[in-house]
Amino acid sequence: MNAGQPGVERLVRYRFRGQTGRARLHEDGVLEPLDGPPVRRLDEVELLPPSEPSKIVGVGLNYHAHAREMGKAVPEEPLLFLKPSTAVIASGQPIVRPAGFERVDYEGELALVFSRRARHISEAEAFSVVAGYCCCNDVTVRDLQQRDGQYTRAKGFDTFAPLGPWLVSGLNPDVLRITTRVDGTVRQQGAVADMIFPLPRLIATVTRVMTMLPGDVLTTGTPPGVGQAQVGSVIEVEIDGLGVLRNPVVAEQR
Amino acid sequence: MNAGQPGVERLVRYRFRGQTGRARLHEDGVLEPLDGPPVRRLDEVELLPPSEPSKIVGVGLNYHAHAREMGKAVPEEPLLFLKPSTAVIASGQPIVRPAGFERVDYEGELALVFSRRARHISEAEAFSVVAGYCCCNDVTVRDLQQRDGQYTRAKGFDTFAPLGPWLVSGLNPDVLRITTRVDGTVRQQGAVADMIFPLPRLIATVTRVMTMLPGDVLTTGTPPGVGQAQVGSVIEVEIDGLGVLRNPVVAEQR
Repeated sequence: MNAGQPGVERLVRYRFRGQTGRARLHEDGVLEPLDGPPVRRLDEVELLPPSEPSKIVGVGLNYHAHAREMGKAVPEEPLLFLKPSTAVIASGQPIVRPAGFERVDYEGELALVFSRRARHISEAEAFSVVAGYCCCNDVTVRDLQQRDGQYTRAKGFDTFAPLGPWLVSGLNPDVLRITTRVDGTVRQQGAVADMIFPLPRLIATVTRVMTMLPGDVLTTGTPPGVGQAQVGSVIEVEIDGLGVLRNPVVAEQR
Repeated sequence: MNAGQPGVERLVRYRFRGQTGRARLHEDGVLEPLDGPPVRRLDEVELLPPSEPSKIVGVGLNYHAHAREMGKAVPEEPLLFLKPSTAVIASGQPIVRPAGFERVDYEGELALVFSRRARHISEAEAFSVVAGYCCCNDVTVRDLQQRDGQYTRAKGFDTFAPLGPWLVSGLNPDVLRITTRVDGTVRQQGAVADMIFPLPRLIATVTRVMTMLPGDVLTTGTPPGVGQAQVGSVIEVEIDGLGVLRNPVVAEQR
């Protein structure tokens, strides 16, 4: 855990007795509320998503080995897509698997959250617009992605953007490793250092096109090992120092 | 103009002396403020976008003749994409043509605005979630669309979602015709009745996937005749009874 490192801060958004707040998370699960209802320990609260983004920009095929497993060529430039804000859920909340499709996949990823309005940010100044990092699961209906070509439906269902468990600032993202587990078994492993397009390039590419607002999220692509999120499973995305994003998968109730 | 029809209402969002408000628009440009600063006439105010959507869902290739002109097969299901909320501008505001691309196109479209939170809406109840309609210009960098495959960058630039000039409720959308003019010359003509997937099908398809929030926008595809939005031109999208959405095209200043 990097949480004890100087300069590293973990910020939790939470709900407690019907009220929402933000708190610093210290070692041993101790919370230091910044606003909202008084709480003392992480295990007392319900986690909320660490950010309320107006938009989530995703990056496709940003690891060589994942592009290979998908049978896709490596893109020449970052391949961007959007997930709607209505897809965001917190750690602990269920991923709802929509009925009528063949295959719903997990994709563990590093997400970064913007600290401020950002447009035309150069690679050199890219880290100046980052508030911090968290884990993300870029849940995807694989058969719909293939059928549509456009990723919007496949990646846009409600609950398809688990983010969390909290926001961590002050870390060096370049040394982080990503692990995805299904029911405790490791399915994905990757290192941020293996990204085809590193974070500054992604930030420059996105903000060349659109204004990122404070709280907006950029997810940075998934390492190899994607597979099915079956109903009844629990998917965990863990990144060094960022904690574990844990979501059960449930069936759609209609 | 349908504005004089019983039950038809035109709702303007505006800025006047630094304050924002909403007003009913009557015949002869008379405004009846509902909230915000007192104003009397449309020509006194600066128009704001008729809605502040959290997301804009677009539909690709929804007219046979447009699919033909793009050399694309007609999709078997509505082809959805997302435009970010940061792309929205009002009638009168400039479309900024980004530097470094070959071709930026206008696409005149009918847009509908959701009145309430909407998920799993059937075709039968589809119109119950519609607040009203306005014109939209789904501005697109054509060469980037072709290069990326995904539409996100091509359609996601700031200023690439002009909406307006105001929101009209109480109209029957099925009889509306869409006209796009460039510097006064008609370039696109289409009828809502010619859509491959009609509005109820689009609403059902979108809300099968994601929750639409009040104010969220669905753009419904462009008729044939797309072409370039050159710097210095003025693009007008006019739909029967919905008014004229008018935006000049300017070069990006860096």
